[in-house]
Amino acid sequence: MKLDKKGLLVVISGPSGVGKGTIRRALFAMTGHDLVYSVSMTTRKPRCDEENGREYWFVTREEFERNIRDGEMLEYAEFINNYYGTPLQKVNEQLEMGKEVVLEIEVQGAQIVREKRPDAILIFIAPPSMQALYERLQTRGTETWDMINERIKKAEREINLAYMYDYIVVNDTVENAADKIMAIIRAEHARVERTISAYKEMLEVK
Amino acid sequence: MKLDKKGLLVVISGPSGVGKGTIRRALFAMTGHDLVYSVSMTTRKPRCDEENGREYWFVTREEFERNIRDGEMLEYAEFINNYYGTPLQKVNEQLEMGKEVVLEIEVQGAQIVREKRPDAILIFIAPPSMQALYERLQTRGTETWDMINERIKKAEREINLAYMYDYIVVNDTVENAADKIMAIIRAEHARVERTISAYKEMLEVK
Repeated sequence: MKLDKKGLLVVISGPSGVGKGTIRRALFAMTGHDLVYSVSMTTRKPRCDEENGREYWFVTREEFERNIRDGEMLEYAEFINNYYGTPLQKVNEQLEMGKEVVLEIEVQGAQIVREKRPDAILIFIAPPSMQALYERLQTRGTETWDMINERIKKAEREINLAYMYDYIVVNDTVENAADKIMAIIRAEHARVERTISAYKEMLEVK
Repeated sequence: MKLDKKGLLVVISGPSGVGKGTIRRALFAMTGHDLVYSVSMTTRKPRCDEENGREYWFVTREEFERNIRDGEMLEYAEFINNYYGTPLQKVNEQLEMGKEVVLEIEVQGAQIVREKRPDAILIFIAPPSMQALYERLQTRGTETWDMINERIKKAEREINLAYMYDYIVVNDTVENAADKIMAIIRAEHARVERTISAYKEMLEVK
């Protein structure tokens, strides 16, 4: 029995190359959940296999900046001259409907969510070792040595921000990490802050 | 991968008749855990099928009171002229060994654990309705109407203490409740307070 009817805002974040996307997909492949993925908004052009509203909401720079001005972005960041961010309205609608809204975002964005939404569950996906992260970035094969070294330095800075999160989940195997995230979501729904008022109401205890 | 090597002190508590014992047994019947049950100490006489160290540690009143004076009881209470309580040393030894130590205790005892051990995980087992609690107490068949009404009044007072706990788990079915407790234990091991220092050490990040 779930006492709180609202969904949870679940943020999956961590250094680049740590495997956030793989874990998120494994999580969504699990049954018996009510997770929805929050589709990000971006100003970059869609690739040929991408669809508006599936990978991203593709908008113009003007539209994105209007959203920022109107306070309609939960978080956003600029990478290589393009904006990426989370539209707030869709998130809130789905939470009200009792869905767990999962964001998969960079550490920078997670910091903003932490400030704006103290109720969000922030999960830091961590590499099992720096060596493992190094190897993952290498096997991607898309980046130069300099770029990889730059990413490793950035990862070290980001690991020092892990204290801001609620949970640290080590990506030792994708299954373990996804299982652990599911346990976190179940446990958080039982936390007393989220359940006490609904529970007293249910029992009609003064 | 579990980052914190120490076990958790898990307190299962709630009103009399709510099904704490049944849930605890279901929990221990689950595989893949490292749970140990903390055997309570009591001054009451063993029944013929009870064994010292299995159901309880059976001691004399003098021994129990010496333990209290020496600060060796994590919590204790007196019921119908007998002491019942949790010996501290065994709990600590098992936590250090990485075992999750489960206490199944009354609300009064849980209040004491809350004060003494802020690191304990307090789980309030709640009835799905007051009616359900009433029916459970009736079908036990061991108590008079007056005793049942007294227990219901006590349960209402105890439900008002649920805010002191970390989690509320509704005993809708024993399996659900035990599953949820297992999820809570897994999630708590990933909480940032318990993992951050071990994690930084592992990665050798300053």
